[in-house]
Amino acid sequence: MEKQKISSAVINRLPAYLRLFTELEEKGVAHVSSSEISELMGTTASQVRQDFSNFGGFGRQGYGYDVRYLCEQMQQIMGLDKTYNVIIVGGGKIGQALANYQGFDRLGFFIKAVFDKEVWHIRVPSHIDVFDTDKLPEFCRENKIDIAIISVPKEAAMDVARMVRDAGVKGIWNFASQEIKLDGVHVENVHLNESLFLLTYKMNNEEL
Amino acid sequence: MEKQKISSAVINRLPAYLRLFTELEEKGVAHVSSSEISELMGTTASQVRQDFSNFGGFGRQGYGYDVRYLCEQMQQIMGLDKTYNVIIVGGGKIGQALANYQGFDRLGFFIKAVFDKEVWHIRVPSHIDVFDTDKLPEFCRENKIDIAIISVPKEAAMDVARMVRDAGVKGIWNFASQEIKLDGVHVENVHLNESLFLLTYKMNNEEL
Repeated sequence: MEKQKISSAVINRLPAYLRLFTELEEKGVAHVSSSEISELMGTTASQVRQDFSNFGGFGRQGYGYDVRYLCEQMQQIMGLDKTYNVIIVGGGKIGQALANYQGFDRLGFFIKAVFDKEVWHIRVPSHIDVFDTDKLPEFCRENKIDIAIISVPKEAAMDVARMVRDAGVKGIWNFASQEIKLDGVHVENVHLNESLFLLTYKMNNEEL
Repeated sequence: MEKQKISSAVINRLPAYLRLFTELEEKGVAHVSSSEISELMGTTASQVRQDFSNFGGFGRQGYGYDVRYLCEQMQQIMGLDKTYNVIIVGGGKIGQALANYQGFDRLGFFIKAVFDKEVWHIRVPSHIDVFDTDKLPEFCRENKIDIAIISVPKEAAMDVARMVRDAGVKGIWNFASQEIKLDGVHVENVHLNESLFLLTYKMNNEEL
């Protein structure tokens, strides 16, 4: 597939498409039409076809799209057909919760180590190493770390981001409450509150 | 404001608008045009005006929109001009991380208690009570709990959801890895992985 510039609105919808296709596949649904997809996504069929056209259209036939093919294509587009070596920087409650989450392996994200300034209090599964942050640059280079999860206090977030970028990390998944913007590394800032605000929107504007 | 049906695509963009307006206000920006907003949001000016038209247009003048007014309006639309009584069900690492997050108070979300089957291991700030889950229904009714954060193992998620709904809770913010769909209560399922997948999308499709 050619690398073309796709609008961020389309890109932001990709995870929801993947979730839907995965659910359909798990339910044993073989084919799905663009109007069925649009109904489940809360959008329009023309929007769905327009979104898909960014990726070659996904081969719609008379009976709709092949669900398994949609899953495979969407995983490939999102880079989920590969595996990633991951570290967690910041061993507080969020860092530990992520280190203990067992779903990452299955998705191809292998947590290799947790780094913190103080390591004694950190409880993680035994196959994950815990190191002082001093060891981070060397570890990243030697273990071909692709992604750093940042879960440090906000004061430290930018320093950590520069440190991992300079150590060759290509992606940052940032849980610190300090937005990270940095050249030379891809960053996804987690805005947890925003789904809480969607909840309060619904509570104040939608009928039960 | 009249309660009208607004598309989920528009609603899903509201938190990003609020975040942008808040950033602009913090930077001391007084006015902003729809084309400036669209540039910062990665969308088009006509999309911005169309989104805003769902809420009466926000009074655009020749020099653009008043940033403070945009903030106030967006907060009001999302129900963030009110306060909410909140409980956390499930005192594991995620539950504790959320109980220890100090930003909720400032946003008007007051965590009143954490519930779990086993309470001895749970470390939360001293003003937050920790109770056995048996006490949940009575506590919710007596303390006018609006929102339940669910962070229990996935096997227990639906039972907890029904329990809090039956106790009068109007909103569920669900961190369990089991999607909750339930009548009689508003639910926002947190899909943390999806922002990780946006990161891998960027890593595989965008230049640094």
